[in-house]
Amino acid sequence: MIQNDTIIALATPSGVGAIAVIRLSGEDAIKLVDANFSSVRKNKRLSTQKSHSVHLGHIVNNGLVLDEVLVTVFKNPNSYTGENVVEISCHGSLFIQQEIIQLFLQKGCRMADNGEFTMRAFLNGKMDLSQAEAVADVIASNSAASHQMAIQQMRGGITNELKELRAQLLDFAALIELELDFSGEDVEFADRTKFKELVSKITTVLKRLIDSFAFGNAMKNGIPVAIIGEPNVGKSTLLNTLLNEEKAIVSDIAGTTRDAIEDEIIIEGVAFRFIDTAGIRDTTDVVESIGIKKTYEKAANAQLIIYLIDANKFSEVSDIIIQEINTIKERFPSKRLLVIANKVDTLSCHDAAVLESEIEDVILLSAKQKTGVDELKSALTSLVNTGALSNNETIVTNSRHFEALNNALVAIRSVQEGIDLGISTDLFSIDIRECLRHLGNITGEYDVDKDILGHIFSNFCIGK
Amino acid sequence: MIQNDTIIALATPSGVGAIAVIRLSGEDAIKLVDANFSSVRKNKRLSTQKSHSVHLGHIVNNGLVLDEVLVTVFKNPNSYTGENVVEISCHGSLFIQQEIIQLFLQKGCRMADNGEFTMRAFLNGKMDLSQAEAVADVIASNSAASHQMAIQQMRGGITNELKELRAQLLDFAALIELELDFSGEDVEFADRTKFKELVSKITTVLKRLIDSFAFGNAMKNGIPVAIIGEPNVGKSTLLNTLLNEEKAIVSDIAGTTRDAIEDEIIIEGVAFRFIDTAGIRDTTDVVESIGIKKTYEKAANAQLIIYLIDANKFSEVSDIIIQEINTIKERFPSKRLLVIANKVDTLSCHDAAVLESEIEDVILLSAKQKTGVDELKSALTSLVNTGALSNNETIVTNSRHFEALNNALVAIRSVQEGIDLGISTDLFSIDIRECLRHLGNITGEYDVDKDILGHIFSNFCIGK
Repeated sequence: MIQNDTIIALATPSGVGAIAVIRLSGEDAIKLVDANFSSVRKNKRLSTQKSHSVHLGHIVNNGLVLDEVLVTVFKNPNSYTGENVVEISCHGSLFIQQEIIQLFLQKGCRMADNGEFTMRAFLNGKMDLSQAEAVADVIASNSAASHQMAIQQMRGGITNELKELRAQLLDFAALIELELDFSGEDVEFADRTKFKELVSKITTVLKRLIDSFAFGNAMKNGIPVAIIGEPNVGKSTLLNTLLNEEKAIVSDIAGTTRDAIEDEIIIEGVAFRFIDTAGIRDTTDVVESIGIKKTYEKAANAQLIIYLIDANKFSEVSDIIIQEINTIKERFPSKRLLVIANKVDTLSCHDAAVLESEIEDVILLSAKQKTGVDELKSALTSLVNTGALSNNETIVTNSRHFEALNNALVAIRSVQEGIDLGISTDLFSIDIRECLRHLGNITGEYDVDKDILGHIFSNFCIGK
Repeated sequence: MIQNDTIIALATPSGVGAIAVIRLSGEDAIKLVDANFSSVRKNKRLSTQKSHSVHLGHIVNNGLVLDEVLVTVFKNPNSYTGENVVEISCHGSLFIQQEIIQLFLQKGCRMADNGEFTMRAFLNGKMDLSQAEAVADVIASNSAASHQMAIQQMRGGITNELKELRAQLLDFAALIELELDFSGEDVEFADRTKFKELVSKITTVLKRLIDSFAFGNAMKNGIPVAIIGEPNVGKSTLLNTLLNEEKAIVSDIAGTTRDAIEDEIIIEGVAFRFIDTAGIRDTTDVVESIGIKKTYEKAANAQLIIYLIDANKFSEVSDIIIQEINTIKERFPSKRLLVIANKVDTLSCHDAAVLESEIEDVILLSAKQKTGVDELKSALTSLVNTGALSNNETIVTNSRHFEALNNALVAIRSVQEGIDLGISTDLFSIDIRECLRHLGNITGEYDVDKDILGHIFSNFCIGK
């Protein structure tokens, strides 16, 4: 499965910048670049240079200088992919990027597939599969929380948790299979007490990792928040207020414009995805209308519901609002509900007091005057217990891992049952193997199906 | 004027990619990164590493790992800027780019201004001003022609042409000023014959460089082509046909999507800018109408006029078309006119023969069937004599240089006149100085005005 041809791709974002980096990997990477590189120092050849060294010169094609570049040489196995790797740092024009890539395609390179550099790193044993998968997560992460989880995984988080347990289980599996060979003699090579302890320990770890997925998934993809409220209660002003405060950090860095992330707001390193819903009050006269149904469907997918009202209009329609709050609470007993009364800047003290007495835990807010915003932020972040993050605990964010962990848990529980029921060793040895296989799938220790590999790396960008 | 503070900027295009490169330059660059870098090899410190070496490790902030990175160290004076330079190659997420830049801003770096790295390279004598200016041109170039001219300039093209002549002129200036000190004694230190030869040589070189500007400017910015033609004669099909053939080269390279360049088409390495004009025939009944006036204004700005007609309708309106062709030729006697008869796929042999006999040099074309396209391309590229490019001649593309060359020419002509009229040396020594000053401005040998420097580098991107 290991390929030895030399691949090439642009490693930096496409577009015009000061510099761009083109990456080559494969047995001939250094040789190929060397043949089209003219060092500023006479007679310097890349092939005789040390690994991890940088060289100034020109990329030359048939005597024509394409660009002045810096070339970095990484020698097999001391590179990202474990192969010979060359990085060409050229001027950042699209024209130059193309010309250089075209040149090396003509000279025998092949355009890299998505994630092929990282796939080669995995195939050459530079990282396990869960670490390789984390590379894509690191690149995609856009909040402190998702970033930290990805970095943790890239540094071997889940691997480290499972490696030792899996090794111990493998030892027992060997001993138990050995027993089967001597089945006529009724010997027990495997210490049953220690084995039970191990099975119980594995069960505990698997459960903890599986439980972390709900949190990890929310952190990775953002916590879904449904905002319910009539038009004109100030929903977009509120979102803009939250968004702008956080964006200020970003806009200080010129040149790092952020992709438009509609209504995704990062508060204290955690991403919240605000889900647009239709108001519910527009249709209170037709209780079972489609509008309400849709709103409730969206609320059902959220982890938190914000009910935004206009503080100034509360007195007019307080009955309806109270009724609506109760309806939401009844429908979604397990979800946290935040009631926010907006536009309090124009509210009298008396009316404010009435509001606070009639609605429990209401947050009085003025998106315009930016009062009450901190209180809202606290309410949002208090939802998230980021303790696990700061304690560097392993959090599962990858649904492939989640599935494998669940499968491993089913298998280890069968083993447990087998032990409890005292059934024949040969019956539960199958379950042990099954558990080992699922654990091995996470790190790629077992031969992973080519299709699965293809699927994993197809989500990568080209050049990684 | 030289600043010693340490600057930082993203050097790669903004956006998400496999990797991003952050660049620091200044006395403390290595020290600052070292303090927040943890090598994979224990106790490895960046400050003790060789220049041009690459190191794998983590960027760490208060014990928290921000990313796994490759750090390249360049030591003063062996770097792009001539200062200590560090390049951090990190994972290409916007979040990581921001976090790392923010970290070093907190630690004492300053955000680099546009082009500040290159400005420092100039101020530290790593390149002259015309070379520094060429860096921006290299990055902005989008065709083989503009790219090659920029590379030529970056490698010192104009500097090399002028350096020797300027040095010789400087020698004469010194001798002539010496004569002034001995003015009572009527001595001639400067050999008048040799001096005349030099002045004549300088005049010739300046003229040649000035003459190259029209060509260089057209190559750099694209050759303007006005297309005149009624709606529905197939203008956009024609443009698309030209565009698609050339774009095919680009789309082969995944990940390098090209910015939309409206109606700029690169043919055989030369950019043509197609200028949209209103048709002229719509308004033939109101001869002096605004429409026609505008069309003529745009045609006046073009270097080439394409008059596109519908071959199938020629017989109906041949008189008007012939008249229009004559009008264009009369108005723009110095411009090349190409008459193209489109939609010839549905034309009879007889009608085609009539067309060719009535309109001189008409190109019969079918944008749909792609016949005649090569003939059109040849006609376009034959306009451009790219001989100068392939002979590696210096071509002036920068209007600041153009202005300085013109000023130098005026001054050297005054010197010539002074010699011819035999006027007193002290009168034309001023002109010699003036000429030297203008030549020095191009390469930045004279102290260049701070505002001019500011203006030059403000056109750069940040990070270069």
